[in-house]
Amino acid sequence: MKTKQRQRQVKPAEVRLDELVSAAQVLFLEKGMKATTVDDIVERAGVAKGTFYHYFNTKTDLLPALRERFARRFLERVSEAVEACAEDDWRGRLSAWCQRSLSICVEDFRLHDLVYADHYHDRSDPDLNQVLDQVEAILRAGGEAGAWPQADWRRLAVIAFWSMHGLADDLIARGGDSEEVGRFLSQRLLAMLGGTGT
Amino acid sequence: MKTKQRQRQVKPAEVRLDELVSAAQVLFLEKGMKATTVDDIVERAGVAKGTFYHYFNTKTDLLPALRERFARRFLERVSEAVEACAEDDWRGRLSAWCQRSLSICVEDFRLHDLVYADHYHDRSDPDLNQVLDQVEAILRAGGEAGAWPQADWRRLAVIAFWSMHGLADDLIARGGDSEEVGRFLSQRLLAMLGGTGT
Repeated sequence: MKTKQRQRQVKPAEVRLDELVSAAQVLFLEKGMKATTVDDIVERAGVAKGTFYHYFNTKTDLLPALRERFARRFLERVSEAVEACAEDDWRGRLSAWCQRSLSICVEDFRLHDLVYADHYHDRSDPDLNQVLDQVEAILRAGGEAGAWPQADWRRLAVIAFWSMHGLADDLIARGGDSEEVGRFLSQRLLAMLGGTGT
Repeated sequence: MKTKQRQRQVKPAEVRLDELVSAAQVLFLEKGMKATTVDDIVERAGVAKGTFYHYFNTKTDLLPALRERFARRFLERVSEAVEACAEDDWRGRLSAWCQRSLSICVEDFRLHDLVYADHYHDRSDPDLNQVLDQVEAILRAGGEAGAWPQADWRRLAVIAFWSMHGLADDLIARGGDSEEVGRFLSQRLLAMLGGTGT
């Protein structure tokens, strides 16, 4: 090891596990997964190599943990933004969902691409289902409170999520103001919820 | 070779190329790309092995050709459905786009997953841009004819495409009636186009 070895303290197992996951995340993003070694990870995490092998066999085994954390933090951060709105402000809650989920997708796209690299065709991916559940709950609660007409909430959640996801990709590819796009998305979703079309 | 060797005829180069691509598509879908050999492909295509190596180095080199063909056929089939509507039937044209693109995604999802396996994070993918151009043109033409208010057509195309794509994935994962979902999608998009939200 080239750098000074960090002081090893007795830490609870979940803390050491979390430190391994954090170290891997930083290194995978900095140098790529291919160039990162298990030695790099344990050195950065300041844990013994044995601790790594207690939890994992190879560095790629860290990906599910990174994915789980990405999804959990996504859900937490979006939920925080939604819960900052009044409980009966349904339009506000939906707008908060649009703004926050879009801004996270744009800010964290490299991490997103890293953790979901092989998961795009998994149509029953549990993370995707959790994210769909979150927006579906907002849509359903608003519908039940009479903010917009009753509808097929799951399908509307699919439309809301993938519209957000596509606009985030478009922002990443072409640039633009993510707040402005968030407002555009929430206005369009509200229009879609209110009307019945032909 | 186990099966009877097909009669070799002198065919134009583009026909032989097309036969190679067709043979690879069938075999990749049947046995998977890993289990398919170059021998399998030339045998099925009824062309000499030298012809294969004239165009490609390895079987994976066929993927861009498969992708190009998938995108071209997608665009052609959707365009056919749209052009079957009257030139000024904007709602009908948008509905035809919804119905046809959704039904192709559901019918051909295995081919779709095969050819786009590594392309999901390519945010400037030319195929995606062509498909977005197609629906954008429908939205813009309708807007210019006064069928719905002027708007940011590119962003609406992104919403339309990814809503369709997400609903197709949902149909593949959970089952359902693709025609009914196509009607749901076109009604929702029309509502979204007509209103301006808050």
